Amino acid sequence: MALIVQKFGGTSVGTVDRIENVADRIGKFREHGDDIVVVVSAMSGETNRLVELAHSIDEKPEAREYDVLLSTGEQVTIALLSMALNKRGISARSYTGTQVHILTDSTHNKARILSIEEKKMRTDLDKGRVIVVAGFQGVDEHGNITTLGRGGSDTTAVALAAALKADECQIYTDVDGVYTTDPRVVPEARRLEKITFEEMLEMASLGSKVLQIRAVEFAGKYNVPLRVLSSFDEPAFASADTSDKNADGSNGTLITYEDDEMEQALISGIAFNRDEAKLTILGVPDRPGVAYSILGPIGDSNVEIDMIIQNISADGTTDFTFTVHRNDYVEAKEVLSKVSDELGAREVVGDDKIVKISIVGVGMRSHAGIASKMFKALAEEGINIIMISTSEIKISVVVDEKYLELGVRTLHSAFGLEQKV
Amino acid sequence: MALIVQKFGGTSVGTVDRIENVADRIGKFREHGDDIVVVVSAMSGETNRLVELAHSIDEKPEAREYDVLLSTGEQVTIALLSMALNKRGISARSYTGTQVHILTDSTHNKARILSIEEKKMRTDLDKGRVIVVAGFQGVDEHGNITTLGRGGSDTTAVALAAALKADECQIYTDVDGVYTTDPRVVPEARRLEKITFEEMLEMASLGSKVLQIRAVEFAGKYNVPLRVLSSFDEPAFASADTSDKNADGSNGTLITYEDDEMEQALISGIAFNRDEAKLTILGVPDRPGVAYSILGPIGDSNVEIDMIIQNISADGTTDFTFTVHRNDYVEAKEVLSKVSDELGAREVVGDDKIVKISIVGVGMRSHAGIASKMFKALAEEGINIIMISTSEIKISVVVDEKYLELGVRTLHSAFGLEQKV
Repeated sequence: MALIVQKFGGTSVGTVDRIENVADRIGKFREHGDDIVVVVSAMSGETNRLVELAHSIDEKPEAREYDVLLSTGEQVTIALLSMALNKRGISARSYTGTQVHILTDSTHNKARILSIEEKKMRTDLDKGRVIVVAGFQGVDEHGNITTLGRGGSDTTAVALAAALKADECQIYTDVDGVYTTDPRVVPEARRLEKITFEEMLEMASLGSKVLQIRAVEFAGKYNVPLRVLSSFDEPAFASADTSDKNADGSNGTLITYEDDEMEQALISGIAFNRDEAKLTILGVPDRPGVAYSILGPIGDSNVEIDMIIQNISADGTTDFTFTVHRNDYVEAKEVLSKVSDELGAREVVGDDKIVKISIVGVGMRSHAGIASKMFKALAEEGINIIMISTSEIKISVVVDEKYLELGVRTLHSAFGLEQKV
Repeated sequence: MALIVQKFGGTSVGTVDRIENVADRIGKFREHGDDIVVVVSAMSGETNRLVELAHSIDEKPEAREYDVLLSTGEQVTIALLSMALNKRGISARSYTGTQVHILTDSTHNKARILSIEEKKMRTDLDKGRVIVVAGFQGVDEHGNITTLGRGGSDTTAVALAAALKADECQIYTDVDGVYTTDPRVVPEARRLEKITFEEMLEMASLGSKVLQIRAVEFAGKYNVPLRVLSSFDEPAFASADTSDKNADGSNGTLITYEDDEMEQALISGIAFNRDEAKLTILGVPDRPGVAYSILGPIGDSNVEIDMIIQNISADGTTDFTFTVHRNDYVEAKEVLSKVSDELGAREVVGDDKIVKISIVGVGMRSHAGIASKMFKALAEEGINIIMISTSEIKISVVVDEKYLELGVRTLHSAFGLEQKV
């Protein structure tokens, strides 16, 4: 017996048949004795349909009305899933963000959750009801409908789990967990049984787009055990124990805090990002405020910056390099050329044929030699490292895009990720 | 300057282009200085799409969840229309039934409005905002979403007009008003400038399905001037005066209480119903309670009864006749045959090839000879009258279905309806 919050994304509820499958799955958890709160997204395709409707009226539709429009997508799903549950004799009630009072600030289209009223849900749970909540939406203090932005349903699920002090928050998706790296690149990639919140944040932001970063942050902040698992596998009852598998199927990947049970790998996974481009402004006069002079105009043009590298200066000038999304390369280069002229820098050079590969693991904190092992493995394959950047639990290198697959496979093997610890 | 509630049905907001047209129309009223509250239905086709989704899950979907589902249809429209208005620089805000607090009872799928909170709307109107309200929906005292049933958007509009003491409630539709009869049957049929609530009720229930009966009742009860007009004509400003037309277009039909200005026609219109069937139980022992013995079982089988006729009895038995919708004929006949056996009646006979034609007019109250004029006109064309039923402001006859068009045309001409009084 446990209280579990389960979130099903748009693909998992994309058709009436799939909604019926979700209802069946919930039924099994109820039979097992678990209390269930379900969070659902809009049926796949529905949000895009609504977005197109809005844009056919106004390219920049008013933010408040955009939320009124988009929030209908999830409302359709909660109603259909509740019908499917009730049809099975599983007592269920749907709630919109307004009804369950997911209070947010008033930042339409990307609101942040402030609080959740748990009283109504407790009453329903005490009556043995499954609660079906519309993800991605809330209500501000004035009663306006708000949305949390794309992918916000994960955040809704985690917030509900935190408010209800649920035993686990399960995010159902079309993959069965978090892998050591992308199995399409490394067939030997292995599903992780556990991963820490910090590692998951580094993996997510680096391209393993299984979970929304905000939801992971939220779960970490409120210590909500978060599990990623497949909505196509047989249900595995998390409440029984924390073992990796049970008779029915996979238990996905549990995202939690580091503990003694945690597998003691040095490195948990290899993340990578194909869509990088780098830009360097050469021979910048090295004086205070130069970094801001360079990055300010880039930020103003709404280009997001990823890595930033500035080495020590020689002869009073320095070289300043950063990476951006490949789509923003041309625009960023134009902005940077103007900046270069203003600063009296020598030249702007760039390359949009690069990729970033990162090794991630809390284990590297207490182990020396991880970086050198990484660089050695790459060198042995003749892969030239263009840039290096590190954090507490991550080392990233930028290499020519032709080395992406080779680099990831090399590192996956060098750190023995294909074998369970 | 006036406060006008305008309701646009599903056809009027059926596409993005039509929503833009509605926004243009509202803009003209704003330029004219009117305060506008708009009520909209779901885009045409949308409600059917949602109904199909529900039924693909459950033939009898749970009532509460059905309302959660269907209410999204109108929510989409309010958002899109508000976007279109704001794009034009016309300040607008959308509200769901929950947000504007259209309090209803808890009878899901056919809830009744109990009260409306006008404070929020007053504040918006004072700020010069157009208010866009989702029709057809409300909220019960527990915060559950309710719907008023199909066509309920008319009722929403009238209820809002009553709560706000609006100068007029305008129902935009695909016809430009209420006609003396169906122009497809009588090409000379004429649009009525005015009609009383009572007459409209008789016309509506008899098949002139321009307005929902409940909305007309509601408007009558709260004395809300109700105007039916076309969403495809140029706007005519009701607030300026009550004249029939202005330079821009038609002013539709005003439904109001009888007053001195009212055109003094004896008959306002000819209504008819093609889908009638009649059933007679012959030789029923004439004793108290026999009507209930007959109609009780019919009602229990959910067959709605229209006309009921029982003549004086001869020889201790009587003949009892009633009409039903043609679709219910077979079922009603089966039920009636059982009843007949139980009562010891002689025989059940019926006919599902009949139609009902009615003349309607408040003028007939004070004028004798209307009925005889009607019967004479029909007789001169050789139309045999099968049944007759009368009310205060209506006389209905049942005739063989082959006489429908001839009968309607004959009466339309006999009472001079093609000419304006």
